[in-house]
Amino acid sequence: MDRRTFLAGAAGVGASVALAACGENDNQDQQQTSGAGTPEHPGQAPGISRRLREWNLVTTWPKNFPGLGTGAQRLADQITTASEGRLAVKLYAAGEFVPAFESFDAVREGKAQMFHAAPSYWTNKHPSIPFFGAVPGGLVPQEHNAWVYHGGGQELWDELYGEFGLKALIAGNTGTQMGGWFQKEINALSDFQGLKMRIPGLGAEVINRLGGTAVNLPGGEIMPALQSRVIDATEWVGPWNDLAFGFYKITKNYYGPGFHEPSAAIELSVNKEAWDGLEADLQTIVENAAAATNVRMLAEFTAANVESQRVLVEQHGVRIRPFPAEVFREMLRHSDDVVRATAEEDDLARRIFESWERFRNEARARNPYAEQGYLQLRG
Amino acid sequence: MDRRTFLAGAAGVGASVALAACGENDNQDQQQTSGAGTPEHPGQAPGISRRLREWNLVTTWPKNFPGLGTGAQRLADQITTASEGRLAVKLYAAGEFVPAFESFDAVREGKAQMFHAAPSYWTNKHPSIPFFGAVPGGLVPQEHNAWVYHGGGQELWDELYGEFGLKALIAGNTGTQMGGWFQKEINALSDFQGLKMRIPGLGAEVINRLGGTAVNLPGGEIMPALQSRVIDATEWVGPWNDLAFGFYKITKNYYGPGFHEPSAAIELSVNKEAWDGLEADLQTIVENAAAATNVRMLAEFTAANVESQRVLVEQHGVRIRPFPAEVFREMLRHSDDVVRATAEEDDLARRIFESWERFRNEARARNPYAEQGYLQLRG
Repeated sequence: MDRRTFLAGAAGVGASVALAACGENDNQDQQQTSGAGTPEHPGQAPGISRRLREWNLVTTWPKNFPGLGTGAQRLADQITTASEGRLAVKLYAAGEFVPAFESFDAVREGKAQMFHAAPSYWTNKHPSIPFFGAVPGGLVPQEHNAWVYHGGGQELWDELYGEFGLKALIAGNTGTQMGGWFQKEINALSDFQGLKMRIPGLGAEVINRLGGTAVNLPGGEIMPALQSRVIDATEWVGPWNDLAFGFYKITKNYYGPGFHEPSAAIELSVNKEAWDGLEADLQTIVENAAAATNVRMLAEFTAANVESQRVLVEQHGVRIRPFPAEVFREMLRHSDDVVRATAEEDDLARRIFESWERFRNEARARNPYAEQGYLQLRG
Repeated sequence: MDRRTFLAGAAGVGASVALAACGENDNQDQQQTSGAGTPEHPGQAPGISRRLREWNLVTTWPKNFPGLGTGAQRLADQITTASEGRLAVKLYAAGEFVPAFESFDAVREGKAQMFHAAPSYWTNKHPSIPFFGAVPGGLVPQEHNAWVYHGGGQELWDELYGEFGLKALIAGNTGTQMGGWFQKEINALSDFQGLKMRIPGLGAEVINRLGGTAVNLPGGEIMPALQSRVIDATEWVGPWNDLAFGFYKITKNYYGPGFHEPSAAIELSVNKEAWDGLEADLQTIVENAAAATNVRMLAEFTAANVESQRVLVEQHGVRIRPFPAEVFREMLRHSDDVVRATAEEDDLARRIFESWERFRNEARARNPYAEQGYLQLRG
C-alpha cells in the first residue's frame, strides 16, 4: 500500500479514536470544588470550580531508569505542579500501560495522551524520524537545539508528526554517545569483518556496511549476550548508564566518541487532538516543562558522565580510546550515504534532509570560531 | 568597612524595604472575579476569586535587543501566560524603571521583583559572581549547565546570592563569544602593547596584563569610539549582535573565539522574600520558564551566529581568524591567575573556585570522548 494513502486512512481512524478516547480519559466533567480556600490558596473564594484533566504519559524507559526515566518522572510532576493539578500527568514505565515500542501508536490512537521516548525507535514509521533524535555523523546537542528551535526543524517535525496526529517537543538529550564496548581491540577496519554488535537505528546499517552484523537487543538482554559471547560488542549510552550495567566486568575496551548518536534528543509527543484542546496556559506549561527537561537532562548526563568516566578508569581499569582515525573516517563516509538515502522516501523526507544538511554545513564553517574552537584551545 | 558587617547591615535594611514594597507591588488584595466563565474557562463557576500579583522585571538590555532583550520579553510573557495572569510580569528595558546597572540593587531592595542581566555586571558586589556568568578560560555552555544544575553550582550560587537577599536562576546564554574586532592585525603578543580595547569583567584584567589598556563602554558608545580611534579594538558578543552594530564598516579583522566569555550565562534573579512567598505552582512556572529560556536563547544565538558569520564573510569581506596560538596561550595563562585570585576574597569564594576548578579539570579529561572529540573528527 502506498504510504500516503495508508496515512490518510489511518489519520481518519486516529481522529475518531482520539475523539472517542477523549470522553474517557480527558475528564471534562470533573470539577474541583474547594469549600473555604486552602493554605495554598488563602485568597480563593468558596465555590471555585475548575476543569481538571488526567493524562497518561507512557514511556519507553524502565521505572526510574537513571536520567531518562527519572527525567520523565520530573517532567510529569512539574506539569502537574505548575498547573495546580488541572493537568495531572501519571507516568507509566515501559510495559506498565503498553509495551515500550507501542507507545507511539498508543498516543496516536488516543489510548494515552503523551509519550516520552527516543525518536529513533520509530524509524519503521518514517525513515526521516531519526533526524529529530539521533543521526549518524549528525549534529551535537547545541547544534540540534539550534536547528530545531531556530533553524526550521520544529516546523518540519510538526509537518511530519502531523501526518500521525501527533505534536512533538524536545524533552531531553543524553549528549554524544560512546562508541561502545568491544571484546577485542579495534585497530583497523578489518576488525569489523564478521563482528556481531548490538546497535540499533541508522547506525546498524553502517556497521553492516563495514562488514559486521548489527543486532538489536533491549537493554536488559545485553549483558547475558556479551557474557555468552553471542555478541562481540555493544554500544549503549555513555559512562553513566554503561557503568550501571557493568559492561566493564566483561571487557576493558571502551571506545568513544561514537559516530552514530552525536546528539540523542528525546521527545515528548502529545496526541494532537488533545494538544489542540489545551488552553494557552497549559500549552505553555507543557512546552516549558519539555524545554526545561531538555537542558536539565543533558546537564545531568554531562555531569554524571564526567564523574562516571573517572570511576571506570580509576576503579575498574577501563581503557578509553577513540576509534582509529581510518575507522572513524569510514564510519562517517557510510553514515553520510545511509542518512542521504532517507531523502528518497518522499517530498517531505527530501526537505527534512536538505534543511538539516544545510544547517550542518553552515555550522561546520562556524564551529572553529565558537565552542569547538575554544575547547580545542583550552583543552 | 568589612564586607560581612556591611552585608549584615544591608540585609536588614533590604528586608524592611522589601516588606514595605510588598504592599505596593505585590497586590495581595487584588482579586480577579469572573461572572459566568470565559471562553478559555468554560467550566469555571461564577464567583471565582484568585490572588493576583503584578511583578516588575527590570533588565540591563535595550528594548527588544536581539536575543537578550527579546528573550527576556518572551520569558516575562510565558510566566504571565502559564500562570493565567496570577503572576503578571511587566518588563522594563534598561533605563525605563532604573538605570541598567542599578537592577541588582533595585531587586535586592524590593523596588522591583526580578532582574534579567549578565552576572558579570555585579563583580563589584562580590568577585565570585562571574563564575555564574562568564569566566575567562572557563566552561562552555554545556559544561556550565552541568556544573550549575548537577555539579553543585546552584547550591553555591544560592548561598552567595542569599547574602544579598536574592534567588538566582540561569535564564539564557549567548554561547562562546568572539575575541573581537581589531583595527590592526594581531600577529604576536607584542601587538597588545599599548592597545586600547573595550572589554569588561575579568577579561579586562587579562588585557591589562598583556600590556594593553582595557576600557569599559556601554554598547551604544562603542561605534563612535572605534570610528574616532579612541579605542583600537573591541569585543562585543558574536557574529549576530556584532553584525547589527556594524563593526565591519570600521575594520575587517575579526578574531575568535575569545578567551574571556566561553559561556556567557544570563541570570533571572528574584527578590528572595518575594520568591519565598510564591506558591509551589508559581515557583515551578518561573523555574521552568527560566530553564526553557536558557536552552532556547542559546539555540537562537547558535543559529543566528551561523547565519550572520556567513553574511559577514560573504557580503562584507570580513576576515575571521583565531588569535595566534602563542597569544591565546598567554591569554589563558593570565586568565587562570586572574580567576584563581578571586578565591582569596573569603571562605565562600574559595569554595566556589574549588568546586568550579574541580569540575573543569574532570570535564577536560572527559571531553575528548564526548562532544568535543566528536566535532573534531566530524569537522
